[in-house]
Amino acid sequence: MLFHVTMDIKVPLDYDPVRFEGLKAAEKARFQELQRAGTWRHIWRVVGQYSNVSIFDVESNAQLHDVLTTLPLYPFMDVKVTALCRHPSSIHDDDR
Amino acid sequence: MLFHVTMDIKVPLDYDPVRFEGLKAAEKARFQELQRAGTWRHIWRVVGQYSNVSIFDVESNAQLHDVLTTLPLYPFMDVKVTALCRHPSSIHDDDR
Amino acid sequence: MLFHVTMDIKVPLDYDPVRFEGLKAAEKARFQELQRAGTWRHIWRVVGQYSNVSIFDVESNAQLHDVLTTLPLYPFMDVKVTALCRHPSSIHDDDR
Amino acid sequence: MLFHVTMDIKVPLDYDPVRFEGLKAAEKARFQELQRAGTWRHIWRVVGQYSNVSIFDVESNAQLHDVLTTLPLYPFMDVKVTALCRHPSSIHDDDR
Amino acid sequence: MLFHVTMDIKVPLDYDPVRFEGLKAAEKARFQELQRAGTWRHIWRVVGQYSNVSIFDVESNAQLHDVLTTLPLYPFMDVKVTALCRHPSSIHDDDR
Amino acid sequence: MLFHVTMDIKVPLDYDPVRFEGLKAAEKARFQELQRAGTWRHIWRVVGQYSNVSIFDVESNAQLHDVLTTLPLYPFMDVKVTALCRHPSSIHDDDR
Amino acid sequence: MLFHVTMDIKVPLDYDPVRFEGLKAAEKARFQELQRAGTWRHIWRVVGQYSNVSIFDVESNAQLHDVLTTLPLYPFMDVKVTALCRHPSSIHDDDR
Amino acid sequence: MLFHVTMDIKVPLDYDPVRFEGLKAAEKARFQELQRAGTWRHIWRVVGQYSNVSIFDVESNAQLHDVLTTLPLYPFMDVKVTALCRHPSSIHDDDR
Amino acid sequence: MLFHVTMDIKVPLDYDPVRFEGLKAAEKARFQELQRAGTWRHIWRVVGQYSNVSIFDVESNAQLHDVLTTLPLYPFMDVKVTALCRHPSSIHDDDR
Amino acid sequence: MLFHVTMDIKVPLDYDPVRFEGLKAAEKARFQELQRAGTWRHIWRVVGQYSNVSIFDVESNAQLHDVLTTLPLYPFMDVKVTALCRHPSSIHDDDR
Repeated sequence: MLFHVTMDIKVPLDYDPVRFEGLKAAEKARFQELQRAGTWRHIWRVVGQYSNVSIFDVESNAQLHDVLTTLPLYPFMDVKVTALCRHPSSIHDDDR
Repeated sequence: MLFHVTMDIKVPLDYDPVRFEGLKAAEKARFQELQRAGTWRHIWRVVGQYSNVSIFDVESNAQLHDVLTTLPLYPFMDVKVTALCRHPSSIHDDDR
Repeated sequence: MLFHVTMDIKVPLDYDPVRFEGLKAAEKARFQELQRAGTWRHIWRVVGQYSNVSIFDVESNAQLHDVLTTLPLYPFMDVKVTALCRHPSSIHDDDR
Repeated sequence: MLFHVTMDIKVPLDYDPVRFEGLKAAEKARFQELQRAGTWRHIWRVVGQYSNVSIFDVESNAQLHDVLTTLPLYPFMDVKVTALCRHPSSIHDDDR
Repeated sequence: MLFHVTMDIKVPLDYDPVRFEGLKAAEKARFQELQRAGTWRHIWRVVGQYSNVSIFDVESNAQLHDVLTTLPLYPFMDVKVTALCRHPSSIHDDDR
Repeated sequence: MLFHVTMDIKVPLDYDPVRFEGLKAAEKARFQELQRAGTWRHIWRVVGQYSNVSIFDVESNAQLHDVLTTLPLYPFMDVKVTALCRHPSSIHDDDR
Repeated sequence: MLFHVTMDIKVPLDYDPVRFEGLKAAEKARFQELQRAGTWRHIWRVVGQYSNVSIFDVESNAQLHDVLTTLPLYPFMDVKVTALCRHPSSIHDDDR
Repeated sequence: MLFHVTMDIKVPLDYDPVRFEGLKAAEKARFQELQRAGTWRHIWRVVGQYSNVSIFDVESNAQLHDVLTTLPLYPFMDVKVTALCRHPSSIHDDDR
Repeated sequence: MLFHVTMDIKVPLDYDPVRFEGLKAAEKARFQELQRAGTWRHIWRVVGQYSNVSIFDVESNAQLHDVLTTLPLYPFMDVKVTALCRHPSSIHDDDR
Repeated sequence: MLFHVTMDIKVPLDYDPVRFEGLKAAEKARFQELQRAGTWRHIWRVVGQYSNVSIFDVESNAQLHDVLTTLPLYPFMDVKVTALCRHPSSIHDDDR
């Protein structure tokens, strides 16, 4: 099942930059693992923001909750989740 | 270039249903033409709403404006446009 | 899968009351059919509003979309959908 | 009487994690006590958020106020309360 | 039990004034009946608005819903309901 | 003259609890003094919130400003003020 | 006593212009009467809007309510009222 | 003096298209007259909207008000006005 | 030219009170200087808030910007600026 | 391609002023470099705010993202990006 997720990241001005770089590296590794598995199906950057727009393809609501709330940068995120479904006019069988 | 577009559609309760079906058919035909051309790259329905979330891939801002404002259902739409760009962590060369 | 849905209903002051009563009767019949099937798991009225708060239990996002958008009163509704999942602290095996 | 309550929890990034785990354990114990008593009738997690949607069944407004404001995690919560009542179309005598 | 209710009234510019005066008279009669019964405990006008702020004292959420949704001017109202309880610092035994 | 005032109180998580209890005691004493004087005519707690809804009866706008801004907990409050007046339908001569 | 009032005026596109001109003339006459009496102490236009910002000087909340709600253009207005008082730093004895 | 103005245009679905084309032509003529005079210094379309962002260079607030409220499409517009001034870092003497 | 300015002041709970009193004294002196010069034409307190509503009479947008951003309390302010102009119905030649 | 960008800057009250002056000098240098290159085509100050309104002329969304997120003051900014395009009524060939 498909979900539209936006993640807005806010880092306090005085947060330790070394510690944050470590979290970013862990986030990237986890993201690529989920991308390879087909769970994190799409990701785009929002121009001018520390934000992304993503499409997730999951088995269940519970799986999506687990994936999102265990992301290394989750404590810095404002997350919005919107349930999607296939559009009947689409000519792409695989438009997920 | 990539843009995230949401389209919320509101139809007045007393709008002529036959006329609206005609506009919907024209919208679908135009959508599929743009999807085949690769301009309207993705489309998903928002669950429970008469709305979609779409990704457009265009040459310029002007092309996007022309495409959106000439859609047959445009007069019924509330449209939001957000500029996107490729995410550096993506492992998909073609993640557009 | 569980979803939290709120439905706010607005009826124009000059809408034909007989026609609306017909739609309400159809809505009630459809609601009870979905309630018996276990799809529309809970419903409550919001005090002082023509609104309800409901819990749906569906197979997929697509099923929820179909159920909601074919309700007889759907054209009068402002609908909000929120994906839910089981809470790990719950002592009820069946808290859906 | 029934009330719909949403609880959004925000934990400061630098809050002592040990102290917070202690509060979470106390919250869970209190929650299960109230769930067994039938006061905290339903709870669901909101996907992607540190939030829950709950249904309370209380004797009075005052009881609900006391229950909510003495929760161990209350100082971290943004709480919204909405009064509910039984829906007349429901076929479940016990739909609370 | 006590509830804080605000009622904002919007009348379409072209609504039949004679019909509206009839509804207003019915509203006033119903209001005074509820005021005498102690159900509609307080009412104040909001300066500059066609709105009131009221305090209701009811047996249950269901009673409040019935009282509000059967008011003659209810179809013109935007209603907001907030659950209240006695304040522990109050020196008035009867501050309801 | 009557005013509707809501006071929402936010206490930082790390505020010295002893100092805050001292301010609360001072607030209570001041409140009861104003209640006895008839200035702070009504107060109710908002269920689930650290907030109250109050009705003030003052000689002038200036008096209300002085009363509110010198409350011991004022620095923690978000205050909203709405001017009220007697409702013409009220059957209570003293409905203030 | 002083109040800050903003009035935003919305006229339906198809409202009879002759009738509206009549209401505008009545509004202007009433305004000047109130301005001469010192009740409508100041008025300014908001640039680019069909709106004004005004300062009223009244005996009571009730007087302000009566003055505002009987304005000829009141049915077209969205009104916001804010209670003001003299600023202690002002060097103008008459800054009302 | 410089002002940033946004104009959002809403046309009712059933507005006479011939009449609207006439207003659009008048709007365009008036716009070009003001552009030639240097009053309407810049205009851009907002992508996907029937809106523009403009920069006006006027002698006074009163001139801006007169220019905006006499535009042929003004009755269809939602207008927002923001006062601007030259930025001290700009290397363009003429950046207006 | 006339501008409507609102200033909302927020002081952190732990800000050094002696330092703030010094800034307040400087603000008052600057305010009275501007009031004498006719630049800060009116000021009123908003009841119950640490806020004021003011009318400025300036030569240009740039002058207003300089005056506002150099106020001693500016770093604590949330400022809103609205361009005004004389109202044509006003009978006061000097209603500024 | 043209984009409308607003930048609102918030500096914590206790931020080291020397460090901030250093960042401001770097921001000014970078701004002028981009202005000379024609990328940062226009900039204006918003009266009374620590904010600017700017027009960027870029090759792509990605270029705009890179330019904005590497500005020295970016960590202090709230940024809004709106895609623009040329207005067909403009008589200036170069109205960018």
